[in-house]
Amino acid sequence: MKMIILMRLVCVLFCCFLLTDTSAQSEAGTIKAIADEVMTNSKAYGNLRKLCKEVGPRVSGSVGAANAIEMTKAMLLNAGADTVYLQPCKVTHWQRGQKETAYLQAGNRTKIALQVCALGNSVATSPSGVRAGVIEVKNMEELKLLGRKQIEGKIVFFNLPMNPTYINTSKAYGESGAGRRAGPSQAAKYGAVGVVVRSLSSNIDQFPHTGATVYNDSFPKIPAIAISTLHAELLSAELKKNGSISIYFKTNCKLLPDANSFNVIGEIRGTQFPEEIITVGGHLDSWDLAEGAQDDGAGCMQSIEVVRVLQKLGLKPKRTVRAVMFMNEENGLGGAKAYLQQAIQKNERHIFALESDGGGFTPRAFSIDMGDVAMRKVKAWAPLFYEYGVYEFVAGGGGADIQPLKQLGTALSGLVPDNQRYFDIHHAATDVFENVSKRELDLGAVDMAAFVWLVSEFGLN
Amino acid sequence: MKMIILMRLVCVLFCCFLLTDTSAQSEAGTIKAIADEVMTNSKAYGNLRKLCKEVGPRVSGSVGAANAIEMTKAMLLNAGADTVYLQPCKVTHWQRGQKETAYLQAGNRTKIALQVCALGNSVATSPSGVRAGVIEVKNMEELKLLGRKQIEGKIVFFNLPMNPTYINTSKAYGESGAGRRAGPSQAAKYGAVGVVVRSLSSNIDQFPHTGATVYNDSFPKIPAIAISTLHAELLSAELKKNGSISIYFKTNCKLLPDANSFNVIGEIRGTQFPEEIITVGGHLDSWDLAEGAQDDGAGCMQSIEVVRVLQKLGLKPKRTVRAVMFMNEENGLGGAKAYLQQAIQKNERHIFALESDGGGFTPRAFSIDMGDVAMRKVKAWAPLFYEYGVYEFVAGGGGADIQPLKQLGTALSGLVPDNQRYFDIHHAATDVFENVSKRELDLGAVDMAAFVWLVSEFGLN
Repeated sequence: MKMIILMRLVCVLFCCFLLTDTSAQSEAGTIKAIADEVMTNSKAYGNLRKLCKEVGPRVSGSVGAANAIEMTKAMLLNAGADTVYLQPCKVTHWQRGQKETAYLQAGNRTKIALQVCALGNSVATSPSGVRAGVIEVKNMEELKLLGRKQIEGKIVFFNLPMNPTYINTSKAYGESGAGRRAGPSQAAKYGAVGVVVRSLSSNIDQFPHTGATVYNDSFPKIPAIAISTLHAELLSAELKKNGSISIYFKTNCKLLPDANSFNVIGEIRGTQFPEEIITVGGHLDSWDLAEGAQDDGAGCMQSIEVVRVLQKLGLKPKRTVRAVMFMNEENGLGGAKAYLQQAIQKNERHIFALESDGGGFTPRAFSIDMGDVAMRKVKAWAPLFYEYGVYEFVAGGGGADIQPLKQLGTALSGLVPDNQRYFDIHHAATDVFENVSKRELDLGAVDMAAFVWLVSEFGLN
Repeated sequence: MKMIILMRLVCVLFCCFLLTDTSAQSEAGTIKAIADEVMTNSKAYGNLRKLCKEVGPRVSGSVGAANAIEMTKAMLLNAGADTVYLQPCKVTHWQRGQKETAYLQAGNRTKIALQVCALGNSVATSPSGVRAGVIEVKNMEELKLLGRKQIEGKIVFFNLPMNPTYINTSKAYGESGAGRRAGPSQAAKYGAVGVVVRSLSSNIDQFPHTGATVYNDSFPKIPAIAISTLHAELLSAELKKNGSISIYFKTNCKLLPDANSFNVIGEIRGTQFPEEIITVGGHLDSWDLAEGAQDDGAGCMQSIEVVRVLQKLGLKPKRTVRAVMFMNEENGLGGAKAYLQQAIQKNERHIFALESDGGGFTPRAFSIDMGDVAMRKVKAWAPLFYEYGVYEFVAGGGGADIQPLKQLGTALSGLVPDNQRYFDIHHAATDVFENVSKRELDLGAVDMAAFVWLVSEFGLN
């Protein structure tokens, strides 16, 4: 008897699955219409040019960030969002100050100027700079083994190249990023006076790549810079030739009290279940060294394009679609925190959030972080995306800005673009509009709009 | 009884399939070793820099082409090929001459200079140039409808934009390319005196894109130029505003008698079946306007890397692997023809040929053109490639240089890289080394080496 009930249940479930699947497959035509409209008339590339060239760098708390807020608010209105508003948030307010100087010197030999930049959120050196002998480490274990005896009074050089054999460059970035994120405090623990980190770049070139460091309050906060990969190689070679190398560097950055800023939000209210919210976003702040074209102007402009294409085609989502330009992803996540707070305060129901923060390159996949039912449902949609570059839905995080929503049970996803060339330009002066391809950017917007549309039509349970 | 035989046959076939599949799957470790070596120590990017910056443009019959032959011969020797030789061929010898001039003029108003270049293989204007009224057509049908009455004595402007809604840009290129390939003779058929073709570019920019035109001997050969997409838009807008527009242009190109040149070939002799030949190649000639970095320096350098990585890892192929730099793909296929001729004369057994001529972008697929048995076998290998960007083996041509081998029954394949940004730079002055990503280029070489290795180990029947 139990067996029969079980079999009936399986049949019912199977029919439900078929029904869901079939109705979703019937959306192929809508998705084609979305793709045709975006690939032909997308505003994402033109908007990105405007953001990059008229605003440019927009580190949290800066005038650039304030200008970007006004500009994207206007873009969301132009895209046809029915409600556009600014959501207040507190953001980390770090300033680089004057350009850094640095050189290396072997004994009393000629000084060699180094290509460097201060790490984000790092403290400045004293006004006269810091000068000390250098000790190179290849990983955190080595640092521990050297210990206070050999590290005290020194500048530690974290020379952690990104592993070229990882085909997924994000994995290499995560692994080698330990030096930048935790290196300064780890070195300070053993008495180091400064830190030099090899830039997290896949290429050997002359550009230092910045990015946030995170101090551990248990140890002194020491100044820290990133050095170009070219000069990381040079420094390492000099150390091999010549045991005794000193480095001088001077940074002028400061961490001010948190500043007031905003997330920028544009909504299309849902026709049937307006209380069910779908978030699609990117982060509006960038580092100060470049235009933040790929990181993450691209994700913001794609999210605005999602709104535009739905409105342009007269596609009325059943659930509320919200494009969000998050502030302060790079060095504090102030926008992400405020977005969660408001969701809790207003008792909002966030069923799905999708972030694009891997650059506007040709899409290859979506990462998904959601329950089994939702995951099965979403995976069954995969064939609808093959045509537009996305081959799979793989388990993985959605993105730093939407991650806090996980505690509300929100299903999360991230666009996964091809990332072979992302870390060539990530957080460096080369992250400019000219390094974005229009069609690659637009194709990501197609997939994002299609995914948002399917969730708005069919929900996730 | 018949049924039982049939079932047994199915079982045997299934076991064969499993066996093949299992043994191929055991090559995952070898492929990982290939990938690790290429992604860490590949010479493809450095060699490409050398080819682009020390040789540069290398249109067939030019000094550049001769220098490229010497340079790649040396590269193949360095890569460890056990036999390196030049294979004579006759090539089309077309020269652009002095830079072209062109302008448009509405009535007697100010002349507007146009960004143009002569089409490859086209004839020159008279020394004083050609000047005539312009008539715009959007497709070949329109041309027919206009007929001799409206076309005679005019310059025909083929304004065929690449269709942005085709996600596969090669499809759009093929379709809109009709204007460049056949347009001049089609227009001459109705008495046109010159042709202006909208550049085959996905972008709107200031660069004219050249490429070969093919005259039909039944009609007069008239001069033909490509115009930048920016100026194609301008010209079209001016024609709308102002029915009567004339264009002047002057080209100085000439077609000389076929020249002597060479394919460059480097072999690793097979250990078990040396008479079975596997070809892996790209084409060494480029257009004269740029460095031919993506088209097709990339494919050549990847093919040399296939040889290098096998030799470096001590992988001895059972079948003979031949890296071939084909000459004259762009405007005559002289190299491809000579390669086939020699294969026939020497009664060579060509079991497989793989070409990379879609740019050195992140690989996504292999196109395959082969019999059912080979196709099933190859498709079963697909999972071995997922990790390295290739998701599928799809039916499709292998490449212009290897296509002639089809008459010998050779199984053909082409690397299919992501092509969203290929036609931004294709045949234009922007096809330079700086627009190639090291990791994307190397990843293509990984897949090519893996495919060549699997065929050398397991054959294709």
